[in-house]
Amino acid sequence: MAGNSFGTLFRVTTFGESHGKALGAVIDGCPPGLTLNEAYIQEELDKRRPGKGKGETPRKERDRVEILSGVFEGLTTGTPIALIIYNEDPQSSAYESLREVFRPGHADFTYYMKYGIRDHRGGGRASGRETVARVAAGAVAKRLLEEYGIEVHAYTINLGGIEAKERDLNFVYQNRLFAPDPEAYEKMLQKIEETVKEGDTLGGIVEILAKNVPVGLGEPVFDKLSADLAKAIFSVGAVKGFEMGAGFKVAYLKGSQNNDPITKKGFTKNDAGGTLGGISSGQDLIIRVAVKPIPSHRLPQKTINLHKEEVEIQISGRHDLSAIPRIVPVLSAMTRIVLADHLLRQLALLAFRNRLSFPCFFED
Amino acid sequence: MAGNSFGTLFRVTTFGESHGKALGAVIDGCPPGLTLNEAYIQEELDKRRPGKGKGETPRKERDRVEILSGVFEGLTTGTPIALIIYNEDPQSSAYESLREVFRPGHADFTYYMKYGIRDHRGGGRASGRETVARVAAGAVAKRLLEEYGIEVHAYTINLGGIEAKERDLNFVYQNRLFAPDPEAYEKMLQKIEETVKEGDTLGGIVEILAKNVPVGLGEPVFDKLSADLAKAIFSVGAVKGFEMGAGFKVAYLKGSQNNDPITKKGFTKNDAGGTLGGISSGQDLIIRVAVKPIPSHRLPQKTINLHKEEVEIQISGRHDLSAIPRIVPVLSAMTRIVLADHLLRQLALLAFRNRLSFPCFFED
Amino acid sequence: MAGNSFGTLFRVTTFGESHGKALGAVIDGCPPGLTLNEAYIQEELDKRRPGKGKGETPRKERDRVEILSGVFEGLTTGTPIALIIYNEDPQSSAYESLREVFRPGHADFTYYMKYGIRDHRGGGRASGRETVARVAAGAVAKRLLEEYGIEVHAYTINLGGIEAKERDLNFVYQNRLFAPDPEAYEKMLQKIEETVKEGDTLGGIVEILAKNVPVGLGEPVFDKLSADLAKAIFSVGAVKGFEMGAGFKVAYLKGSQNNDPITKKGFTKNDAGGTLGGISSGQDLIIRVAVKPIPSHRLPQKTINLHKEEVEIQISGRHDLSAIPRIVPVLSAMTRIVLADHLLRQLALLAFRNRLSFPCFFED
Amino acid sequence: MAGNSFGTLFRVTTFGESHGKALGAVIDGCPPGLTLNEAYIQEELDKRRPGKGKGETPRKERDRVEILSGVFEGLTTGTPIALIIYNEDPQSSAYESLREVFRPGHADFTYYMKYGIRDHRGGGRASGRETVARVAAGAVAKRLLEEYGIEVHAYTINLGGIEAKERDLNFVYQNRLFAPDPEAYEKMLQKIEETVKEGDTLGGIVEILAKNVPVGLGEPVFDKLSADLAKAIFSVGAVKGFEMGAGFKVAYLKGSQNNDPITKKGFTKNDAGGTLGGISSGQDLIIRVAVKPIPSHRLPQKTINLHKEEVEIQISGRHDLSAIPRIVPVLSAMTRIVLADHLLRQLALLAFRNRLSFPCFFED
Repeated sequence: MAGNSFGTLFRVTTFGESHGKALGAVIDGCPPGLTLNEAYIQEELDKRRPGKGKGETPRKERDRVEILSGVFEGLTTGTPIALIIYNEDPQSSAYESLREVFRPGHADFTYYMKYGIRDHRGGGRASGRETVARVAAGAVAKRLLEEYGIEVHAYTINLGGIEAKERDLNFVYQNRLFAPDPEAYEKMLQKIEETVKEGDTLGGIVEILAKNVPVGLGEPVFDKLSADLAKAIFSVGAVKGFEMGAGFKVAYLKGSQNNDPITKKGFTKNDAGGTLGGISSGQDLIIRVAVKPIPSHRLPQKTINLHKEEVEIQISGRHDLSAIPRIVPVLSAMTRIVLADHLLRQLALLAFRNRLSFPCFFED
Repeated sequence: MAGNSFGTLFRVTTFGESHGKALGAVIDGCPPGLTLNEAYIQEELDKRRPGKGKGETPRKERDRVEILSGVFEGLTTGTPIALIIYNEDPQSSAYESLREVFRPGHADFTYYMKYGIRDHRGGGRASGRETVARVAAGAVAKRLLEEYGIEVHAYTINLGGIEAKERDLNFVYQNRLFAPDPEAYEKMLQKIEETVKEGDTLGGIVEILAKNVPVGLGEPVFDKLSADLAKAIFSVGAVKGFEMGAGFKVAYLKGSQNNDPITKKGFTKNDAGGTLGGISSGQDLIIRVAVKPIPSHRLPQKTINLHKEEVEIQISGRHDLSAIPRIVPVLSAMTRIVLADHLLRQLALLAFRNRLSFPCFFED
Repeated sequence: MAGNSFGTLFRVTTFGESHGKALGAVIDGCPPGLTLNEAYIQEELDKRRPGKGKGETPRKERDRVEILSGVFEGLTTGTPIALIIYNEDPQSSAYESLREVFRPGHADFTYYMKYGIRDHRGGGRASGRETVARVAAGAVAKRLLEEYGIEVHAYTINLGGIEAKERDLNFVYQNRLFAPDPEAYEKMLQKIEETVKEGDTLGGIVEILAKNVPVGLGEPVFDKLSADLAKAIFSVGAVKGFEMGAGFKVAYLKGSQNNDPITKKGFTKNDAGGTLGGISSGQDLIIRVAVKPIPSHRLPQKTINLHKEEVEIQISGRHDLSAIPRIVPVLSAMTRIVLADHLLRQLALLAFRNRLSFPCFFED
Repeated sequence: MAGNSFGTLFRVTTFGESHGKALGAVIDGCPPGLTLNEAYIQEELDKRRPGKGKGETPRKERDRVEILSGVFEGLTTGTPIALIIYNEDPQSSAYESLREVFRPGHADFTYYMKYGIRDHRGGGRASGRETVARVAAGAVAKRLLEEYGIEVHAYTINLGGIEAKERDLNFVYQNRLFAPDPEAYEKMLQKIEETVKEGDTLGGIVEILAKNVPVGLGEPVFDKLSADLAKAIFSVGAVKGFEMGAGFKVAYLKGSQNNDPITKKGFTKNDAGGTLGGISSGQDLIIRVAVKPIPSHRLPQKTINLHKEEVEIQISGRHDLSAIPRIVPVLSAMTRIVLADHLLRQLALLAFRNRLSFPCFFED
């Protein structure tokens, strides 16, 4: 049943299938008075658009976003902001041969068993294409966070086993893999070329960095900032792992090593990854996300069909070689949506602590 | 603001602080007609009780649970089940010296900054003790899941760097570390002994295994089963990483390696970890959780106090050496709470698909 | 902040302003496998379309609904159903003179004070036009309820003080006021004619009748069926009163008069209006709703403007004389949305009580 | 399924049955730093305690509230406030004869059909006794609202057909019926005396008045302040009608009569009842609530039992003659809970509009 909304005060609802008429998002709870236009949102969408690189789908998606509501004379009004992106190039015919087959690694089987029916065209709602709506919504969150100076960056620190050593944020936005390390970037390109030849696909790891996050975001005990981030990130298809700060390495650390000492000037290191007790500490948020290889490779695969017959399939069509780099702006978007929501939640508390007064209009 | 509830149809709300009067949980949405009594819940609570082992807090907590509502003549009635555990041995005086100090690695600083006030006694609401209410609520979820044959196990696969090779579920319940490997267990005990001597603490990794999970649990796109599990697990203090199936290893796998082939008899392997597109596939759920070392070690630590003075502290008092093993039943509990909720959500859908009829009482 | 969604399992989110680009609804949680097309939804929308009658706005709204997602090959898929209605005839210029004025009886003042900004064109989000999205969403709920034989009717039992004595459901759908009484209908038309001449507007009372509602819908204690109906109905602009069964008359009844006796064949009367303890009893739901006169009459009115100056205004433009009859299908729609949601919620419970089994696919 | 929580940021969850061990509430989202103690809450509880008057149950309930969590050294901490009231005098034996009978006007039949089981003792969860938890939670909301000078009053304007003409708020708290009119009060007492003799019970109407409500509370379009109030009030057992301002009289008013003109000094009258477009206008909230007669009168009643046999019953035991006056503080409590929630929701928006800054701790 209902599961396509996210957030409490800043609430995003998305809709749309890979080969349906349109995808979109309704952002409910965006405060009024923010400048917002389509160009601003488009800039984020363009980051996840397939390009012309090796290993990227040649599907043509201009992905033009349109604002349908919630903005008046260039400013948000406080009412729901509906964003729509029409599907322009849905070549469904390529999927006709897969209509009755469950592709391994995809959600074909689980959707069919859950619903007793499925839109087989390109994965339907389970397609990565669904994330276009998240990125559009995330752009609104970005606009909101700018008012508090909060920045979110995401970049590819591992692609197909090639690890980035450096963290050069400028370089991130200058290469089409969002790699933070020029040397690793070259090796990643090579790896891609090899893998395309093999007809196979690659996984990787994305790091998310949020700067200038105020202290105090997150609600004990279930709606911790860290917990809501984990949910947000894990709700993105292809994600198989999530860690903060030292992450899985904590198994090998002692308390005396793992604790971040505190001085008058702040924490001296950041193994926590930006939260303590699940509440933001004012340090940078540091998150790493494991992304599985795209299941639609070109090699033969064993599976079954609706009639319970075992078959061997070979997937053609327009597919990416890796969810990376297109997942990178999606992960930024989800991080921003969580931060926008928790920013507003904590503002309610702070406003009360400050006994913030309500505006009056009438003469006494 | 509000953040102490979890779930949609099976909804758990918890309350209580480490050194307050009582901790408890309200379980709203438990179906009627289930046998339930205090002994059943107590059995789960006893699993997280501090024992007499090396490295475990000598704090005496009988943790007697009492059912206050929602059960009548031994059966659940469908109304909220309130569970209470009174605190019996709150020695707050040990914390008096820490009243104005922010302990590194704890939530002292973030709670203070968030709320402008804190209950300094043993971490207050941020204490691991909070999880007693989760375990009590998880016992109710366990009772519900039994009706569908769903089992959840959790066990320590890494403590302080010592890795378990084996997965012997019988052994898990025969040792006080919930280790699944007798050999690793012995080494873990040794590691504990050493670390106690050092005055330090240990982290580790817990694996969660859920068996007999029906296919179809989880709601696209935000309320994926995997996403709700990530949130549930990450809402537990000390958790710094969460992965499913192949987890972070997917970065090194190709699509042809990572996909799980499907035959008439089911999947031939389980790199997915039990979900596809975030929806349960009928395979076992396999989750791994990184647990940081307890921040309250006995070595000197640098920090600051409320007056912004830099101080060196040394923590005494009754503390565990590791969140493991006590966190293990907590992780099982949270997993069960998620599964109970999603079971009911999917039952609504299936009931409609089956046009399940409503009972009638009157003659026509 | 966020407040444009309604429901738990069957969840409706709406967006759009009176003179914006489009209005729409996202229905999340509609079960799969239902036949649904645009013609079906259009039929409901046409019921709230302004006609050519006296006292109705001449604004031309074809209000063509388009299904953007969630339906594949004529069947719902279980994923979000997005519906859109583009605004075709938004003559905003008529509102230019009201840009800085707070119209009495409208939400101009409260929106301005809440948001510090407002879309003044035709009331923006506060316009009655917003309800077009509710009616579209309600059509999906109607389709769902049909599967269980549940019917909702609404009709005008009082317009401008003219009371309907009869309850002729056939006649309801044969007159443009949804009046259930031919005699009262004639008098209402007369009243309308008079009031148009005066330049004034009328209020009234709508009755809602839901038939074949199964017993057991509604969740104690806050999410009672009756409570959720009260909220749903009171969320419609212009509603100032809500009562069930005997309603406000209960003040004059004794317990021995008000109780509905029960026999083998059912209840012998229905003063309760279809719920006991807030849970449906299997009797018809009977609700009455007070609808205030449209505040945009044509007589001079005293008010103030943004600059705190007292002004006298006279509203021209295209306005209805009464929210009735256009509110009638809106009230049916909201009632259906509540019933669809609670039907699914109770189905989850019944499915568990029946230990409904999950489908299997693989050979053992 | 789950339905025992209310509110978004200020969230109340209640539990407990009439003859169970205890009743209670968990208030999640109460801001930190408020003074709060048991005496303060007790004062509210004492208002709904059965007294020694004619027509009131002689059941002895001291209803001592205990704070279990969320308050430290006399101040709220921001964490969940759990309140408990143990049942001291549950004489269940009186209900033994009713174990298999469905009492007319009660929820016996609907609970049985919904759950397939019921706690027959005193109505179980459907008992008016459930409201003790609401009053306790409402006291916390009261404490919060005091900080903004918001006051809620409720009083009996009709009991058994006797109408109050006056609105003397001082007198309200000086008589045990919460009547605002000394003359009507005397007549009400007389009416009670007569009705007790008849063995019958009475309904009535309660008016709620909220003063100093800031402008801007309520979220379009579904979470209007008015809509949430309607739900809150209708979630109280025995309520059959809810209206605001002119209420059902709007059917007889023209737009020119119903609109409230606006001047520099504010609105010149209040037919709206305090909201426009569902958002508070800064005027007093005025609500009227229809309360049905207690169904447990002492006259013979026709009904059926579990075995589908028609029986005649006569209810003895300790019962009130009317839900009034005990429902009066319950209605105040629910109103306060809604206002506290919406106050915090609007504070989040205002805080953002003001770019309220977050506290810093560290040196630059």
